[in-house]
Amino acid sequence: MTAATNLWLYDTTLRDGAQREGLSLSLEDKLRIARQLDRLGIHFIEGGWPGANPKDVQFFWHLQEAPLQQAELVAFCATRRPGRTAETESMFEPILAAGTRWVTLFGKSWDLHVTEGLKTTLAENCAMIADSIQFLKRHGRRVIYDAEHWFDGYLANPEYALKTLETALNAGADWLVLCDTNGGCLPHQVQEIVQAVTEHFGTLDCLGIHTHNDAGTAVANALAAVQAGVRMVQGTINGYGERCGNANLCTLIPNLQLKLGYECVPPEQLATLTEASRRISEIVNLAPDDHAPYVGLSAFAHKGGIHVSAVQRNPRTYEHVDPQLVGNQRRVVISEQAGVSNILAKTQELGIDLDRQHPLSRTILERMKQLESEGYQFEAAEASFELLIREILGQRQRPFTLKGFDVFCRTDSSQSEVTLRSHSLATVKVDVNGAEMLTAAEGNGPVSALDQALRKALMSFYPDIAEFHLTDYKVRILDGHAGTAAKTRVLVESSNGRDRWTTVGVSANIIEASYQAVAEALEYGLQLGKTHVLWPSEAST
Amino acid sequence: MTAATNLWLYDTTLRDGAQREGLSLSLEDKLRIARQLDRLGIHFIEGGWPGANPKDVQFFWHLQEAPLQQAELVAFCATRRPGRTAETESMFEPILAAGTRWVTLFGKSWDLHVTEGLKTTLAENCAMIADSIQFLKRHGRRVIYDAEHWFDGYLANPEYALKTLETALNAGADWLVLCDTNGGCLPHQVQEIVQAVTEHFGTLDCLGIHTHNDAGTAVANALAAVQAGVRMVQGTINGYGERCGNANLCTLIPNLQLKLGYECVPPEQLATLTEASRRISEIVNLAPDDHAPYVGLSAFAHKGGIHVSAVQRNPRTYEHVDPQLVGNQRRVVISEQAGVSNILAKTQELGIDLDRQHPLSRTILERMKQLESEGYQFEAAEASFELLIREILGQRQRPFTLKGFDVFCRTDSSQSEVTLRSHSLATVKVDVNGAEMLTAAEGNGPVSALDQALRKALMSFYPDIAEFHLTDYKVRILDGHAGTAAKTRVLVESSNGRDRWTTVGVSANIIEASYQAVAEALEYGLQLGKTHVLWPSEAST
Repeated sequence: MTAATNLWLYDTTLRDGAQREGLSLSLEDKLRIARQLDRLGIHFIEGGWPGANPKDVQFFWHLQEAPLQQAELVAFCATRRPGRTAETESMFEPILAAGTRWVTLFGKSWDLHVTEGLKTTLAENCAMIADSIQFLKRHGRRVIYDAEHWFDGYLANPEYALKTLETALNAGADWLVLCDTNGGCLPHQVQEIVQAVTEHFGTLDCLGIHTHNDAGTAVANALAAVQAGVRMVQGTINGYGERCGNANLCTLIPNLQLKLGYECVPPEQLATLTEASRRISEIVNLAPDDHAPYVGLSAFAHKGGIHVSAVQRNPRTYEHVDPQLVGNQRRVVISEQAGVSNILAKTQELGIDLDRQHPLSRTILERMKQLESEGYQFEAAEASFELLIREILGQRQRPFTLKGFDVFCRTDSSQSEVTLRSHSLATVKVDVNGAEMLTAAEGNGPVSALDQALRKALMSFYPDIAEFHLTDYKVRILDGHAGTAAKTRVLVESSNGRDRWTTVGVSANIIEASYQAVAEALEYGLQLGKTHVLWPSEAST
Repeated sequence: MTAATNLWLYDTTLRDGAQREGLSLSLEDKLRIARQLDRLGIHFIEGGWPGANPKDVQFFWHLQEAPLQQAELVAFCATRRPGRTAETESMFEPILAAGTRWVTLFGKSWDLHVTEGLKTTLAENCAMIADSIQFLKRHGRRVIYDAEHWFDGYLANPEYALKTLETALNAGADWLVLCDTNGGCLPHQVQEIVQAVTEHFGTLDCLGIHTHNDAGTAVANALAAVQAGVRMVQGTINGYGERCGNANLCTLIPNLQLKLGYECVPPEQLATLTEASRRISEIVNLAPDDHAPYVGLSAFAHKGGIHVSAVQRNPRTYEHVDPQLVGNQRRVVISEQAGVSNILAKTQELGIDLDRQHPLSRTILERMKQLESEGYQFEAAEASFELLIREILGQRQRPFTLKGFDVFCRTDSSQSEVTLRSHSLATVKVDVNGAEMLTAAEGNGPVSALDQALRKALMSFYPDIAEFHLTDYKVRILDGHAGTAAKTRVLVESSNGRDRWTTVGVSANIIEASYQAVAEALEYGLQLGKTHVLWPSEAST
């Protein structure tokens, strides 16, 4: 860990974050996320609750064999159950076996949860806290005590809530973390209650904060706690978590570092924040939030014409921080509201020299607006937009031209009514540099069959196509009220392992929309790679 | 407006919200949103900038003919341009023609924007503010002055920033709204600067706040401003807005009303907040944020087993407010982490009596986990989950059984290489109560052809099917790395005009996955309606 750090970051994406509805993590996912967090410079990484989940036991084994580079790995567990001793509490065995130097223990602060949830006495709850911490300390562990429901508990019964914290501190807890488990606190409450704690104990440099976003203020609550003297901040990447999520570390870290002057991670690691956010959203297979502060695709996007020209003159006028500090970038958005200056900014990005007075700059704008009114969307599909610009400027080199395709799918259930057997076949006719290629392919489904047939036709001319793969495929119905007959927009994201690009297709026919997007994806990829083109005579057909 | 209101809500979804990347509003969309905001009890609804946009001119005309019920409609405009007089400023003509009692004028507070953006003098900027407000007041308008870039302006040059506000106040502005245009302020800064303003002017009961979410604290910033004395709060529904969005009124209103005790809207209107949020997300055709505070589908969802049993005993233990106050509801989430108690809670919701000891409760759990491992997702597709439960319990009444289908699509470009002509045909064979129906239909695309053929087969038996329509259709690739050959998950949302339900299909073949989801949607809808079934002999085939 960095010696200069004066604020400790604690990530719970792997445990509390995984409570998010729609999110589930494989062992491999958990290991990849832990490595990514380690590279980002997070100080404590909570790995899960070994024992509660077989996957979590394996996770800790893996990291015993190949430890993290700089982060402390933390195992998570409850205090012992009522009526046992710490020695007879079977939950602690896998915790010790996890072999981490640090353990986070959570216990009850709110009298209601003790009497109604645990069905035990207030005194026994304190004994559970003390025994559990002392047991782990005797086994050489350092202990982070998570005071669950702290704020609600303090509001309901401040004496008892404070008593649970005193108990944990006296038992040897290294950190006391105040948790807003139900997520309903507002910043002024967090600030007042943290101040009350520090006044009660005198100066405490081992206080932490753990907030949830049920009132939309998880980040602000954590900031209020830090400003009131807390020294550890818990949260998750992209704010994943149950209900409305946990405090988003991707927002908190730059707020703390760029605006409040704390050094959380070295600047060069802060510059990997956007990458970490996006890579983790890929690992958990959730679409990234394009509007997320700091790391979202739109976080530094300029749409209105006035903004675009002003921000180009002086970024400070419309940007609260320099996007490069968090590894993000400024973007000029191509949209319905765009004016010629947006088009010019875009062509400039593409390295195309186009003057405001050039008649084609208006042609591009008009053609774009017409296509958008038909349902195309170029905001996301920048590769398709580039192909459109190059077409209008006479710079588009069509490496192939579609003549037509057929797709046939059969599904039958002759064997059983539940299991369906299906079969998809596609034929494609394309012109490649004057040679007409007619190919056929089967696939798991119609789009796959079509994709295969098209690749088959092109592969001998453009062998680089073998490296292109589709990384995401999104379908949206443009007019829900028209049902399955509505227009379909397909966005295809592709990669060659190095670059990543998105193309769009629109049609009432999902197969045709998919074809458009897939064909443009191949065309754009070929242009990117500046592949050597084999002429028909050279290629083996 | 309500007399008891002591805080004024100002919505700018139609103007600032529409700056969100990926959002564009038709005239009809704008009118529907305005009516919805009016029903919710918003006091001021900013309609747009008439003159800058032909659509906005028409919008105000429409609302002159059929005015809003309770809200004040507001037209938006900049101060006059440098070097003109208000009388010669052509921008003001359409503003007066819009015929609203209220006009919001925005002007510059930050010296940098005056000298670099407008390229004029600081004195001329003040004259622009004064002239414009006086002109509108002479024409009988009430004026809300939006002090753009207020916070950055105050930090850069507090004397000048305060002078622009004084100018506006002296010229007769009815409200002074402090805008954090770049969205980078943190709550403590907002609080300090609002306090500085109130100290400068003495008590001012006409201050407003307008915040953006670039630091993830738009809601907390607005709350801090209210706590420092501001009396008007500006924001947008669902936090729509440029970059990271504006302050989210769906979060702010319940925070202000349920937590800080302000009366913003009557309680019965607050209970329509969730509906307003979801309906507006439908109108703008953006997927709702399931994790949004208060109004999200997951905002009161309980996933972990401990939470589920505790919240059933006493909701206060894990819920920060009663979901019904904002028109939302508690949900038990069916997911990979589910235990038998989640399954029981779900069957209870469905009115099915199932005991923990019943062997089928474990069968349901196991079958669900197996299907989820194959890519099905029941968290969103609750209708499919209900069908699955009923199947295992022997209560599923299959109104039809698929025997097989064929789909054929042809696309050719014989006429021109750009315009493709396409043709889709489907045949379906189903068994309906012992009668085998073979039907064929054409469609705009393969899924539509299949849907039509299936409806054709069923319509004579179940005429209610005519009322069902598909309201959303989502496709997700489950393993992006496998490209177009990967498994496809289709989620279909359907409605009969009253209820709304979601079904799921999974297959490597997008057509087959769509068939599954569409077929289950029809089956579920029929069960909901408890349709009278015509037997084969009664039906005209």
